Amino acid sequence: MKGIVTPASLNKAVAKNYKENRKKNPSAKTLVSQICKGNKTALSRAITIIESTAPKHQEKAKAIIKGCLPNGNKSVRIGITGVPGVGKSTFIEQLGKLLTQRGHKVAVLAIDPSSSLSGGSILGDKTRMQELVKEKNAFIRPSASGDSLGGVARKTREAIVLCEAAGFDTIIIETVGVGQSETVVHSMTDFFLLLKLAGAGDELQGIKRGIIEMADAIVINKADGDNLKATQLAKTEFNRALHLYPAKESSWTPKTLTCSALKNQGIKEVWDMVQEYVKQTKNNGYFTQKRTQQNKFWLLETINNTLKNNFYNNATIKKELANQLKAIKNNTSTPFEAAENLLTTYFKK
Amino acid sequence: MKGIVTPASLNKAVAKNYKENRKKNPSAKTLVSQICKGNKTALSRAITIIESTAPKHQEKAKAIIKGCLPNGNKSVRIGITGVPGVGKSTFIEQLGKLLTQRGHKVAVLAIDPSSSLSGGSILGDKTRMQELVKEKNAFIRPSASGDSLGGVARKTREAIVLCEAAGFDTIIIETVGVGQSETVVHSMTDFFLLLKLAGAGDELQGIKRGIIEMADAIVINKADGDNLKATQLAKTEFNRALHLYPAKESSWTPKTLTCSALKNQGIKEVWDMVQEYVKQTKNNGYFTQKRTQQNKFWLLETINNTLKNNFYNNATIKKELANQLKAIKNNTSTPFEAAENLLTTYFKK
Repeated sequence: MKGIVTPASLNKAVAKNYKENRKKNPSAKTLVSQICKGNKTALSRAITIIESTAPKHQEKAKAIIKGCLPNGNKSVRIGITGVPGVGKSTFIEQLGKLLTQRGHKVAVLAIDPSSSLSGGSILGDKTRMQELVKEKNAFIRPSASGDSLGGVARKTREAIVLCEAAGFDTIIIETVGVGQSETVVHSMTDFFLLLKLAGAGDELQGIKRGIIEMADAIVINKADGDNLKATQLAKTEFNRALHLYPAKESSWTPKTLTCSALKNQGIKEVWDMVQEYVKQTKNNGYFTQKRTQQNKFWLLETINNTLKNNFYNNATIKKELANQLKAIKNNTSTPFEAAENLLTTYFKK
Repeated sequence: MKGIVTPASLNKAVAKNYKENRKKNPSAKTLVSQICKGNKTALSRAITIIESTAPKHQEKAKAIIKGCLPNGNKSVRIGITGVPGVGKSTFIEQLGKLLTQRGHKVAVLAIDPSSSLSGGSILGDKTRMQELVKEKNAFIRPSASGDSLGGVARKTREAIVLCEAAGFDTIIIETVGVGQSETVVHSMTDFFLLLKLAGAGDELQGIKRGIIEMADAIVINKADGDNLKATQLAKTEFNRALHLYPAKESSWTPKTLTCSALKNQGIKEVWDMVQEYVKQTKNNGYFTQKRTQQNKFWLLETINNTLKNNFYNNATIKKELANQLKAIKNNTSTPFEAAENLLTTYFKK
């Protein structure tokens, strides 16, 4: 009777499926199949496995990612950054609601390298985005924690794949901008949006830290009430700052917009702009080109970090490094000769 | 008669010394001994050997550096950067002359990564610093050329050791600021001076590229004639820019000065400031601490670059890298999995 579907075998399959669904430890295959059907619980579970540092989860995580990959790569990925108090949650909630109303499926992830230290400065709080979280077509995931920004970045990149496999067509990656986190978010998104306040006086900070250079758009929030005039001034200022930079490889001219997330004003215009960007860069080929560059960046980044870790965590090197530093200090060697000595020791092994 | 100096043996020694001096290919030992006596011709020859890419010079270069090292590390190293037209040559000539008049020995070296492409945009021209070049206690060396900034940096660092062994107590490292060259100069000098013009409108460029952050002083040149008022305005602007940054580890508050190199005005004040910096940082220990950090930086930089070069120049890796990139593009692998595959291949060998 093998291969023939009978009511009995069907019932068995259904029962098995039900059990798999209920049990606490579904297989990678089951999770992938559920994720691809858009099951948010399975998606959450799978992300937890990916984020786990337990060795027993490593193989399963790999299998899940592998299973989801063919359905990945299909969303528009938007990076949003802004200092605490700029209104990021409210802005993302309004943008998310607009998108779900229009039939989109929206996932919100976060990069927050401070989370492991401070207990999370973003998204850790369940009270954020109270309305968006109730939407069937929205998925909100608190920040992955980790020891290194590289580790957090990898987990977030993998979570993106899973969200895409689950049918989320718009993925928002949020960060507060601790350390190099904006650079990390920029390197995994298609569109990078900088949320600002009027009169905060941090235009120069943004230039200094290279954030303005990365921005595809600067959106000045809280453009309401007494703040309107200041917002217009800030818009002019930021426009001036944006024009300091040479034309982008994307041929996209970065825009400055204003909005009031609280009053739900100007959000539609932000989304129109993102769509315009996607249309333009898909037409000129930059959209795909940027993703290829990003993949290469993460590939090389991972390799380079591993090469370094392997070297500097080597017991012999650790010991010899101290000796070589001493020799330099005592004027009996140069940094270059010391490097050669260490490398010879390393490669001999 | 061994060990006893007779007129005959003395004559022989003198003759041998004379021949060594005259011959085109003096030994490393001879060069070191001549350098340590302050012989500028020997210093020039030795730097040429260090800069040489010929394999036969490698061992000799190492021996020369080794020989000079015990007499190194004794100068004050000043980094000077500024765009073409800012008056760097005139400024350095005036500063150099002031120093030699005061009994100092001054060496001027340059970092110019463009030199191998353009034939040198700085110091290649013999007509520069016409007066300083005639001074007995000045040594001017055109920029080392090289394929990479790292290579040029290494050669310059080694030239510094040789100049110090030759008794130069003040070493000026000049750069026009192509690519990352300011960062390189900053990482091998004690004091970093940014030369500027009034009204050039590139304050924001300086902030953007992180140059202002590195500066221990901004000196606005051409503060003469009709330019005086503009210079005062620029001074205020730059002071404002400098105060954007948190206090330096050196506890030194970066200064803004004005000068006219052409009219030889304000140069003395610049030197007074450098001396004040040296005094302050030697007192608080930062002077030595910074040198130790710089040595460590160059040690790690050399190691990291070699680790990467070894990996990416490996024939198997080169081939496999292309395959892995294809797999990522075809959605059958992630950058992280691809990296793991490549690293496994590499470390198996």
